[in-house]
Amino acid sequence: MGKLTVQTKDHEYDIHIGSSTYVLFATEYKQILENTDRIAIIADEKVADLYLEKLQDALSFIEDKVVCKTIPTGEASKTVETYAECQSFLLQQGFTRESLIIAFGGGACGDLAGFVAATFMRGIPYIQCPTTILAHDSAVGGKTAINMPEGKNMVGAFHQPEAVLFQTGLFSSLPEREIRSGLAELLKHAFISNEEWTYQLLANESFTNPSEEWLSEELLKGTQVKADIVEKDEFEQSTRKFLNFGHTFGHAVEGVCGYGQLSHGEAIMIGMAFSLLLSEELGHTEKSLTDQFIRFAQTQKYSFQPVHEHPFDAFMGYMQKDKKMSHGQLNFVLLNGIGNPFVNTMTKEQCLQAFEQLKIRTE
Amino acid sequence: MGKLTVQTKDHEYDIHIGSSTYVLFATEYKQILENTDRIAIIADEKVADLYLEKLQDALSFIEDKVVCKTIPTGEASKTVETYAECQSFLLQQGFTRESLIIAFGGGACGDLAGFVAATFMRGIPYIQCPTTILAHDSAVGGKTAINMPEGKNMVGAFHQPEAVLFQTGLFSSLPEREIRSGLAELLKHAFISNEEWTYQLLANESFTNPSEEWLSEELLKGTQVKADIVEKDEFEQSTRKFLNFGHTFGHAVEGVCGYGQLSHGEAIMIGMAFSLLLSEELGHTEKSLTDQFIRFAQTQKYSFQPVHEHPFDAFMGYMQKDKKMSHGQLNFVLLNGIGNPFVNTMTKEQCLQAFEQLKIRTE
Repeated sequence: MGKLTVQTKDHEYDIHIGSSTYVLFATEYKQILENTDRIAIIADEKVADLYLEKLQDALSFIEDKVVCKTIPTGEASKTVETYAECQSFLLQQGFTRESLIIAFGGGACGDLAGFVAATFMRGIPYIQCPTTILAHDSAVGGKTAINMPEGKNMVGAFHQPEAVLFQTGLFSSLPEREIRSGLAELLKHAFISNEEWTYQLLANESFTNPSEEWLSEELLKGTQVKADIVEKDEFEQSTRKFLNFGHTFGHAVEGVCGYGQLSHGEAIMIGMAFSLLLSEELGHTEKSLTDQFIRFAQTQKYSFQPVHEHPFDAFMGYMQKDKKMSHGQLNFVLLNGIGNPFVNTMTKEQCLQAFEQLKIRTE
Repeated sequence: MGKLTVQTKDHEYDIHIGSSTYVLFATEYKQILENTDRIAIIADEKVADLYLEKLQDALSFIEDKVVCKTIPTGEASKTVETYAECQSFLLQQGFTRESLIIAFGGGACGDLAGFVAATFMRGIPYIQCPTTILAHDSAVGGKTAINMPEGKNMVGAFHQPEAVLFQTGLFSSLPEREIRSGLAELLKHAFISNEEWTYQLLANESFTNPSEEWLSEELLKGTQVKADIVEKDEFEQSTRKFLNFGHTFGHAVEGVCGYGQLSHGEAIMIGMAFSLLLSEELGHTEKSLTDQFIRFAQTQKYSFQPVHEHPFDAFMGYMQKDKKMSHGQLNFVLLNGIGNPFVNTMTKEQCLQAFEQLKIRTE
């Protein structure tokens, strides 16, 4: 079982990754759970169907306190309506300031359940039990959020979990596109931190068909990159912005295609290609890197279809609403070579040029 | 113009009380306002009708940045729906992380607008411009919240404002029951801090018909009591609970009567009588104090009608959902003599006895 400790200003917590992390409920986290009066599992309904029993078994020593609320699967749960429904559920079940939430599902479930925890009676503790590879990204850092019709993650709070428990066995039933989604964020962590690791990943032909052992090790590395950045910059004032590599255009792809159509990581893969093209345009990375990345992405069956199906203005509209917009400027995380991210303001014309390039070079 | 500084762990801000505090926008707060890209006034619609122009005049030096969103008056605005509507409004107006919110209205407006600010893109700054006497309480301390059908202030966040500006001239149009409401919280601040001041207030025959000058001075005193407590205990782990004197039963009164039927302070006045009766039951305060308090309240036209119109169980149901419930216990702030508040767990039977006493002694 791998473990790393995240230290933020007011709070410290551990992330555990391995095949049997849920045993920790009855050992390391026994005290915390016994000190609460009620515990709500907020669970993605598909995950609950497959695995709720496993989690309940691990919590059987305090089963009288535990209730479960299922929510729609994936991004569909991150609405104001589901958020309010969860709050009402907790109140109807007699939850208090001494209660605790367990988020059981992918990144979306963690975002929603985390925001519920952040704001229920102005904040109660929560434990993340992510069930997707992608969640190795979202489960670290304490960012919680819901979506608005106008954009993704527009409403939320910073709220650090008490612990994060990845049970890697639960990944075995993930559909292929979910695996692709999670590994895109892993690749992002490599791109913004380590050249050698990045080229290793780009050379890995079974990248999207990984073994559980390889995955545990790689996720620990990816999580470490994220944790290091979050420790330094909890509230995204500076370096934490680098984690948004690929996300400015990626979020626009998600917006244009409709949330939930393309998986998050699949959209981010397109966004990273876009950022590499912008970096190339400015002379900060080589054309050969972009080409290698796109070839790799296509071999691993990531799709670039959205940029061929929708006009530039559609993406532009979403980017102008992005949270990373500051004083009306279009900001992107670019690379000055692999491992050296920086934030740069781009013009609409530069974006258009990158967009045209992206279309040509992914044909 | 009176001023006091509130110091919390990560943040310091000033509260200004006087007849022309809005001039500070163009002087002391000019820099903050010029550093933002957009400013939204979230205004109670009734307050906006009367006074929006005054506020806009004070902001005329940056009028291009300023937009206004009006919301329903009073507690009716503190719904999930209005909250989501405000978030959508900000997004549609192109607000970013560099934007700022001004809350313009009573305590409810401050609670709602503060919670919008706390969670818009995970938190942007806000300035409180309270327009009621009651808001001298809610505008200090950074508690923000909305109501759920299951209870008041059940969902929210701690979010400290950049500044609080009370323009006392705006109080002149307050209806009588709003004046009574605000002064009840002032009296609460006296009860939990200072015996001499409390008896001064209880002896003041024109308590609910105050001059602007008296009001400025008294509000500064009340605000100071609250600010001192908040500084010591920002997240309500200990002494901040004392500010809930009268609120356990008071919130139940609001719940039973329907939010907005009775003003908040009117309900808290009944709640303080209830707490004095519990304190008396335990031998911590004199019967004569309770009697003096009830006589004073009745002379000043505070109503005790709700306890005569609704059964004990109706109030009990609300109290059992109160946030101050911990591990299923009924906790109340009681007095061990004026100025010495403490938290005590009471049984349902003790509450019933106090309730019966309250009915008899307010007949």
